[in-house]
Formats: sequence, C-alpha cells, structure tokens
Amino acid sequence: MTQFKTTQTVPETARRNGKISAGTRVVPEETPVALSYGGSTHAVMMATPGDFEDFAVGFSLTEGIITGPSDIESIEAVADDKGIDLQIVLKDAQNDALTARRRHMAGPVGCGLCGIESIEQAVRLAPSVSGSTLQLSQAQIVEAVALLNGQQPLHFETRAVHGAGFYVPGRGLIAVREDVGRHNALDKLVGAAARAGYSGADGAVVVTSRVSVEMVQKTAIIGSPMIIAISAPTALAIRTADEASMTLVALVRGEDFEVFTHMDRIQPGAVADVA
Amino acid sequence: MTQFKTTQTVPETARRNGKISAGTRVVPEETPVALSYGGSTHAVMMATPGDFEDFAVGFSLTEGIITGPSDIESIEAVADDKGIDLQIVLKDAQNDALTARRRHMAGPVGCGLCGIESIEQAVRLAPSVSGSTLQLSQAQIVEAVALLNGQQPLHFETRAVHGAGFYVPGRGLIAVREDVGRHNALDKLVGAAARAGYSGADGAVVVTSRVSVEMVQKTAIIGSPMIIAISAPTALAIRTADEASMTLVALVRGEDFEVFTHMDRIQPGAVADVA
Repeated sequence: MTQFKTTQTVPETARRNGKISAGTRVVPEETPVALSYGGSTHAVMMATPGDFEDFAVGFSLTEGIITGPSDIESIEAVADDKGIDLQIVLKDAQNDALTARRRHMAGPVGCGLCGIESIEQAVRLAPSVSGSTLQLSQAQIVEAVALLNGQQPLHFETRAVHGAGFYVPGRGLIAVREDVGRHNALDKLVGAAARAGYSGADGAVVVTSRVSVEMVQKTAIIGSPMIIAISAPTALAIRTADEASMTLVALVRGEDFEVFTHMDRIQPGAVADVA
Repeated sequence: MTQFKTTQTVPETARRNGKISAGTRVVPEETPVALSYGGSTHAVMMATPGDFEDFAVGFSLTEGIITGPSDIESIEAVADDKGIDLQIVLKDAQNDALTARRRHMAGPVGCGLCGIESIEQAVRLAPSVSGSTLQLSQAQIVEAVALLNGQQPLHFETRAVHGAGFYVPGRGLIAVREDVGRHNALDKLVGAAARAGYSGADGAVVVTSRVSVEMVQKTAIIGSPMIIAISAPTALAIRTADEASMTLVALVRGEDFEVFTHMDRIQPGAVADVA
C-alpha cells in the first residue's frame, strides 16, 4: 500500500530559559481515516496514517464485524487530499451480517462510541475471558512494559503518541503499534496480532495510555485475559474488567505496579526481579 | 441537579520496592452520558459525571447546534443504573434547524467524530478567528498554565483526568473544568464560559492535554484566537490553527513554551518573567 508520512517536521518559535529562538520540531501526523465496508462508510477516525491493514482487521475484530482476518476478502487504502478511505470488502456471509446490523442501527445519528447510539449499547458487557489459562509472573509484567518502552519509534521521535503491544509469555512482545489515538493503537495491535496468527487468549495487552472502559471492552472482545497499562484506570474500566474475569494491572513504573482485578492470574511466590 | 460521584476509592494490590501489599487508590469515575435533544439521542460520550449544564451548553455550542446558552429552553439530567441522559430542550427555531440537519445526516452509521459520517465532514474547516484582537504577553502564557496547574482538584486526587481553562487577560482563569476525556473537558469549559457571559474572543483556551485537530476546531468555533497546551500538537492541528488565524502555543513547561502558529498574538518586547 501507499506509504504516508507519520510525522512532520514543523517550524516553531521556542522560548527557552527566557530567550526566544526559531527552530523546528517533529510532530505526529493526524489524518481522517474512514473505514468503509462494501463502499459504505462505517466510521471516520482521526488516526496516524500507517498500518492500514492492521487497522482494518483490528477495527473489524473489536467492532465485532468479523471473527478473524480470513473473513475479509480485500483491503485497499484510497487516499485523497483530505484523508484516507480504507475500503474493506468482506466475504459474503460477513457482509450479509453487517447489512442486517446496519439496518438495525439506522435511526438517530450517534457518535462518541463507535456505532453505538444509546447508553444501553455504550455499556455493552465485555465478554468473559475466563476461558484463558494465561498467568504471568511479576517479572513478566515488568518485562512486558520495559519491552514496550523500548519499541516505540514514533513516540521516541514525537513524545506525543500512544503505544500498544501484545505480550506472549516466552515470546515477548510479538507486535507493537503506535497511533495518535489510544483506541486506534489498540485496534492496530489487535489486527497485527491476529494477522500474525495469535489468539487474544495467548497473551496480555500492554498499553502506554490510561485504561478507559473501551480499552477493556476491546481487550475482552479478542479474548485476552489481561491488560497492563502504564497509566491509571477509570472506575468503570475496573468494574468492567472485574465482571469479565480480566486482570487489570496499571500504573506500572519500573518494577512497581498495581493490580485492580483478578490477582489470580499473577503467579504467586517469590518476587523475581527482571535482570 | 443530582450530584454523582466523580471519583471512586477502589481496592488494589500494589507491588512497591519488590513487596506486595493491599491498599486502595482513588480513580476517576467514567459514565456514559447521552446528549439528547427533544427526546432523541444525538451522541453518547464516556465522561466524568459532573458539570452537566456546562457539558450540555458547551457540546451544543461546539457542535454548532446552538449559538448561545439562551437557545436552550431547559436541561435535565436523568440517571438510570447504566448512565446519564442529558435531556436538552431547544427553543423552537433551534429545534427546527437541528431536525433539518438530522434529516440531512441520516444515512450511514457514523462515529469517531461527533455526527460526522464522512472524511469531508471530518475535516470541516475551522472558522477564522481573525476577528479577535486578543494579544498575550509571554508572562501571561506562563501564568495561564501555572494557574491551570493549581486548579485541578480531580487531577490532584487521581492523576488521571484532563483539564481545560479559559484565560482572560486581567481576569485570570475564569473557569476550569476537568473530565476523563479531553474533548469533554473542553466542551464543559466552553459551556461554563458561555454561561458566565464570556465570549470566546475574550480569551485563550488552556488545556493540559495534547492538541488534536478537534481541540483546534472547538476553540475556533467559539471564536477564541489562542489555544495554549501543556502537551504537544499534531501536524493537522497546526495546519488547521494556521488556516484559522489561531495562535497555537504548546509544550508549556515552567517558563518555557513553543509557538507553532501566528506568533503575532504574542506581544513582542521584553521577556517579563512571572514573579
């Protein structure tokens, strides 16, 4: 697919130590990216223009439009001067299901949450992830975040984007994706992991951002039983993770962290520090 | 209106310095808040449950549904166990305009940006703010951010929410609002400022968060010619501010800051440090 610039170097006037000087800064690009199915736009997200196949697959998965990458016939990124349209063609069965769902959803104009027009839909239950037997040691939690911190080239350059990684015990971070939007970063990661053949139940989602309820819902929808975040969770995210049998680890700083739900997926015993 | 808790104290298991211990943490609440006009839901946002009148007025203003608080007949917050419905009744003229707009918008199910179903709509031009004669000194920029840092009780308690303030030269920060979502914090601020009788052209919007294009659009829609942010801007936010004649100041740290557009609204001359 066409490559787009994910950063721009822009002129700026800086005040530093009381002195004004002209210079430049690298900032992240932000582009309207439409997700269209069968020619009809489903959503427009403000996103970093990259990893389009991952985004298309991941968004389709976390929105419940597909159950796996093989449900998609083709993905094409079509750019004009205003943005990028990800034109997704579903296989016949999925296409029929989406058409039926759209007919059901038509009515008031909704937003805020994707394709959700009512509070009832906004707080859709996250599916239970109790089917996964995943456990991590304390050292693996620390390792997962340390690895993520080292694999964010866009953030290293701009200090202004979110990162999401998928940690599989024994394999490390099998994928990391970055985006100006934290939901987009997670959707891109979900797509990347699925395209690489990983099931959500195999590992933990690791994110740099705060944990809102939508991050927990997306993690639950792919069947991953653990979300590990550098920043703090909301109360609703904690309640939702608890109900879904998901382990929510947050505020990971160095070798310190806090566990808010389902501590049972963190192996008991000696505290093994990461070398 | 009914008061809702904006924070919750939750149990947690913390690892600190290699030791595991049980404790509690204060986290921000997050609630689905529907914005409904004449009984029909326009949007559902995940928000901090507070400042409902400000949110209703500010959202209506930045979405272009009203031109001032007096266009609203009444606002009522109706809670059930799943969330809060802000039931807004518009005066007749505004109601007719919204009905016509909704008819135009009906069609595909959209999301991501509020009520915007296509890329063309997503990159709607921000109106020019060249009508405002506002200028700030370097010292006032530093002061605006310093004041905001001191007026965020929810962030002080949780370290996990965004803040937005409206700075009027000679008056200081006339309002500050906080929310788990940065767009909501800005909408609540816009509502609070409008309800207090301030016009956007009177001052600068000051935010703790990064500056995405939507933050610039909202600032432009209320006619404020300057946005000052603690964090970094996106490239599209910079281009949009430039086209709208808006001054975009970002990365304010202590007395240092960076100006990306329209430096002419920052008064030249001696660098006066804030005492």
